[in-house]
Amino acid sequence: FCCQFIRMGHKLVALGTMALDSVRTPFGEVENALGGSATFFGVAASLFCKTGLISVIGDDFPDGHLKFLKGRGIDLEGVKKSVGQTFHWEGSYEFDMGQARTKRTDLNVLASFEPDIPKSYEKCDFLFLANIDPDIQLMVLDWIRPRYCLCDTMNYWMDSKRDSLERVFESVDGIIINEAEARQYCETPNLAAAGLKLSGMGKAKIIIKKGEHGALLFDGEDIYSSPAYPTTRVVDPTGAGDSFAGGAMGYLAKRDSIAISDFKKAVVYGTAAASYAVEGFSIDGIAKIKQEDIEKRYQRLRHMACFDHSP
Amino acid sequence: FCCQFIRMGHKLVALGTMALDSVRTPFGEVENALGGSATFFGVAASLFCKTGLISVIGDDFPDGHLKFLKGRGIDLEGVKKSVGQTFHWEGSYEFDMGQARTKRTDLNVLASFEPDIPKSYEKCDFLFLANIDPDIQLMVLDWIRPRYCLCDTMNYWMDSKRDSLERVFESVDGIIINEAEARQYCETPNLAAAGLKLSGMGKAKIIIKKGEHGALLFDGEDIYSSPAYPTTRVVDPTGAGDSFAGGAMGYLAKRDSIAISDFKKAVVYGTAAASYAVEGFSIDGIAKIKQEDIEKRYQRLRHMACFDHSP
Repeated sequence: FCCQFIRMGHKLVALGTMALDSVRTPFGEVENALGGSATFFGVAASLFCKTGLISVIGDDFPDGHLKFLKGRGIDLEGVKKSVGQTFHWEGSYEFDMGQARTKRTDLNVLASFEPDIPKSYEKCDFLFLANIDPDIQLMVLDWIRPRYCLCDTMNYWMDSKRDSLERVFESVDGIIINEAEARQYCETPNLAAAGLKLSGMGKAKIIIKKGEHGALLFDGEDIYSSPAYPTTRVVDPTGAGDSFAGGAMGYLAKRDSIAISDFKKAVVYGTAAASYAVEGFSIDGIAKIKQEDIEKRYQRLRHMACFDHSP
Repeated sequence: FCCQFIRMGHKLVALGTMALDSVRTPFGEVENALGGSATFFGVAASLFCKTGLISVIGDDFPDGHLKFLKGRGIDLEGVKKSVGQTFHWEGSYEFDMGQARTKRTDLNVLASFEPDIPKSYEKCDFLFLANIDPDIQLMVLDWIRPRYCLCDTMNYWMDSKRDSLERVFESVDGIIINEAEARQYCETPNLAAAGLKLSGMGKAKIIIKKGEHGALLFDGEDIYSSPAYPTTRVVDPTGAGDSFAGGAMGYLAKRDSIAISDFKKAVVYGTAAASYAVEGFSIDGIAKIKQEDIEKRYQRLRHMACFDHSP
């Protein structure tokens, strides 16, 4: 029933960054490779559902990347092309792959980004606010007022724009955040306490991404846990969190549901999407897969989590 | 059917340390409190099954502790009392509770420990080799030759007695190990790769304990995952791993089974036992609970892990 909605407008729209990333890991390096929170989200979500992006690129952004994204069925009408260079992130991962070390961040065209929201996006049901300045997140949320909105963020905004970020968190229906950010925001080392604090602040569902340890979903006082997919081919973790969000939200939009039963499955679909993202540099890991690949890993995760349930 | 076997000898026996610990955490401190790998294991396992311990104490070991352990139905016939002081560990945990910092280790009577194994232990079906010198583990394993044996260890033995430890790992039916140790032993940061390497070395089942992130069970190429119990009252992590092993092995011994279906549940019972252990100093967290408390947390863990299964 996804298609039925596409006719009326978009089912799923995401705001976020599009970037050219230079990344070094123990397994190799890439320069000015396709990246950004909206990009990874869109590539993962497009496995489930047609997705529109709101973002900005510079005039150096390769046409090949745009062609690839359009070829995935991603709508780029909301992607502004500005004079100047595309947002650039440069970083590296050490042997344990746990933590990105940022070497350099050039905001470039992102510094003065003011989103233009296409008419066709305005009636979207599902909106994702990927990591970007929380003031821009608020602006887009207020403009679109979707049926259902989830957001992500990063530690940088917790320090520099705490008030705006709090308003975002109060306004959305769910937060997808990583474990270090959850601990930092809630000022506790205890992840269960952090999740319960966040989910107790409003009616929002809270998803805490734990990388190789999977993800937790908090729904009021109820907590659910998904294992991580046990891939042994972790090449580049960049974009894993955004791919997770794309898989999760893509599944919800496809199901046209925010029921907790679907939300639990969405977390596992997000986990499956993220597991592909880390297996290649840039979007290579997730770009080449199909819906049935995701389904296969979903089933493996289902099997892993099953210790005393009917199959 | 547990009782039937007790008549013939012990169902479950564990080798390990008994200690007097001095521990400081952000929530308080204790001096010369009851500790040691065999102690925590026995207290947790005794929730499921009568358990015999093989260990050593000094002449300073308080009678009250012995009385408490006997009161739990733990058999201390294999606990030697030697002239000198009991093994003493002194350490602390910082705010994040993730990693113990050892301030001091006094082996005392443990340094010259040679186990005496009571006749009644010799026909035990299930043997657990808790963390202790791997040469002692080998000696006890060779003496008892149980139907089924699991072991634990610590990073110290990986450095100082690698060869003996390898022989232990080759001789047992399963290894319970924490995530840092698994990574170190297998020389890989990837936990899935470490677990698969360990489980591929023999026919052993591998359990990797991940603290607040739960536990993984490797059975050949099959991997299962248990969430951690989301306790927000983590007071002292000392003994959590041994309590986990006690809960897991106690359950297997009670069931008199090593079927994978029971092994999966054993991991979750171990998780439930560990979650109580961390809620108090020394054995206080786990000493006061009953079988039905464990069952309650087991059911909560079952609910947490259920995202697409029939209830």
